[in-house]
Amino acid sequence: MTLAVRYTAARTLDTAPAETRSPGPGEVELAPAYVGICGTDLHIFHGDMDARVHTPAVLGHEMSGRVVRVGPGVEGWQPGDAVTVMPLRWDDTCPACGSGHQHVCQHLDFIGIDSPGAMQQRWIVPADTLIRLPDSLALDRAALVEPTAVAVHDVGRAGVRGGEKVVVVGGGPVGVLIALVARAVGAEVRVVEPNAHRRRLAEELGLTVWNPTAKNVSELVREWTADAGADVAFEVSGAAAGMDTAVEVLGVRGRLCLVAIHSRYREVNLHRFFWRELTLVGARLYDRSDFERAVALVADGTIPAERLISKVVPLTQAPAAFEALEGGGDVMKILVDCTENTDNIQGAAV
Amino acid sequence: MTLAVRYTAARTLDTAPAETRSPGPGEVELAPAYVGICGTDLHIFHGDMDARVHTPAVLGHEMSGRVVRVGPGVEGWQPGDAVTVMPLRWDDTCPACGSGHQHVCQHLDFIGIDSPGAMQQRWIVPADTLIRLPDSLALDRAALVEPTAVAVHDVGRAGVRGGEKVVVVGGGPVGVLIALVARAVGAEVRVVEPNAHRRRLAEELGLTVWNPTAKNVSELVREWTADAGADVAFEVSGAAAGMDTAVEVLGVRGRLCLVAIHSRYREVNLHRFFWRELTLVGARLYDRSDFERAVALVADGTIPAERLISKVVPLTQAPAAFEALEGGGDVMKILVDCTENTDNIQGAAV
Ligand SMILES: [Zn+2]
Ligand SMILES: [Zn+2]
Repeated sequence: MTLAVRYTAARTLDTAPAETRSPGPGEVELAPAYVGICGTDLHIFHGDMDARVHTPAVLGHEMSGRVVRVGPGVEGWQPGDAVTVMPLRWDDTCPACGSGHQHVCQHLDFIGIDSPGAMQQRWIVPADTLIRLPDSLALDRAALVEPTAVAVHDVGRAGVRGGEKVVVVGGGPVGVLIALVARAVGAEVRVVEPNAHRRRLAEELGLTVWNPTAKNVSELVREWTADAGADVAFEVSGAAAGMDTAVEVLGVRGRLCLVAIHSRYREVNLHRFFWRELTLVGARLYDRSDFERAVALVADGTIPAERLISKVVPLTQAPAAFEALEGGGDVMKILVDCTENTDNIQGAAV
Repeated sequence: MTLAVRYTAARTLDTAPAETRSPGPGEVELAPAYVGICGTDLHIFHGDMDARVHTPAVLGHEMSGRVVRVGPGVEGWQPGDAVTVMPLRWDDTCPACGSGHQHVCQHLDFIGIDSPGAMQQRWIVPADTLIRLPDSLALDRAALVEPTAVAVHDVGRAGVRGGEKVVVVGGGPVGVLIALVARAVGAEVRVVEPNAHRRRLAEELGLTVWNPTAKNVSELVREWTADAGADVAFEVSGAAAGMDTAVEVLGVRGRLCLVAIHSRYREVNLHRFFWRELTLVGARLYDRSDFERAVALVADGTIPAERLISKVVPLTQAPAAFEALEGGGDVMKILVDCTENTDNIQGAAV
């Protein structure tokens, strides 16, 4: 029997037998190994996305695992291949797809939100969502590829170049990954984060972190940049004050990359956008090239994935892990280990 | 004796003898011919910019005229040359200048606001602000070069390409010029304007204009673009509702060029920027290349300047013209003719 972690109602997760079937044409059956718990998963858990999520819902989209079986017509993949999944399905017919931006397809199926996710012991996905992992990359570290792909996409949308001064507003997992990717491009990076736990975790990764409740960030940036202002800011906090900070720190022609979800309208200093000719760039998800770059960055250690993993819990303890995460702050990334009882399960499924 | 139109206090203009002196090193004395009245001039007239403007202030920065005398060390200019002026002086030392964006210098002197403008019969400016006008271009039409340069800059900042669908929110002089420049680039353009007078004037220029108080603009754009949304929107209205419209009409990866001055913070739908990966680009003023392109567009008739000029008033009637403009709406551009009593004045000055 294979198990799945299921969201059944606000603040309620259970583990239950997963539905199993043979992979259809163009599909692949995977054995997920590690699945990261992401902020979106927590939003779902809180009941904030009940309008979109159909219960019972299997969560999870930050994963690593191995191919178990391939369906008819699938070429290039073998049982045992190490993979991650780019969890997007698009319709290829809408105007967004027509203009080459399939990742923001107007009818996007985000696997793990709109359709069943990876937090289960067998998972069937379209073969064209697979991203190959190098044998040298441990599967626990590989679970960080998906959030790293987000960061790669964000840094690319902002057009960060070597030598630029970059402010990342928000020091959670996504903010830290953006900071690390921007640093890898050659930028000088400062992270702004009010939470002491998160500051300490980011500092342990060698990042310079400012506490906006103790210091005036705009003044710090003026000192740091000799009055020029930052070249790029990333708004990753989702807070009104974070947006203000990201606008204020930018110098002439600065670029603000909007990563966070602001579900409410925000009061924005548009005059500053006019006066300094600033640019605001929205960034959502990723494409295949972002994923491939992310695999390389995690594999070569540029992203110290093992240091971002705060804890690994077995599948059956995932519900408790979600509850513990509510407190927030003290952890960076928690992985769910789906390989519990692996021998027994593999024997049953293959 | 030469005259100047002076702003002396809120809602008060007079005409008075202009200060005259010889042009210093690197300076040129001009005889302004026509000076357009701009929205910024009206803001000053209303007293909204008293913190920045030093009274008595000579207004005017949309001008055409001829060189009268050149100061020591000025080469390449002769008395009689037809010119307009790019009314910007920068310090060449601040970070904005250092990064090549002199037009948004952190210590910018905007001539006509921060220092004396063109609404006078003799005007001394730095020679490096001069832009040569072709002999074929009538000086009244040439007064439209400066606002056209604004539009060229805006269309360039938005990166408008041929075949793109463009929505211009706001159908005053700047909005109409943006629409005409975007059309010249090969874009399909729609203008959104609630004022009936302005709609009629824009329609007379062959533009398609939508009334947002009678129609749902978002729906019109969906029909027009087969659900794709517009490629580019220009926010030229300065109104909260205009900003909302500009965000709403854009499709995936659409670009919003922010032209209007929003002196208050605005509630902005940041989620849409994230979801559709929109870009917001602030656009302010222009550079020399924008001016040179604007001269060509006015000279070759792409910008039908003569049809944008609603009225020409003599210098001594400029104060009355400002009062009449308060009603707004029914005019596109009013020019002040500075050549009144020209023979007499030239005799006195040369
Ligand atoms: Zn699509
Ligand atoms: Zn400067």
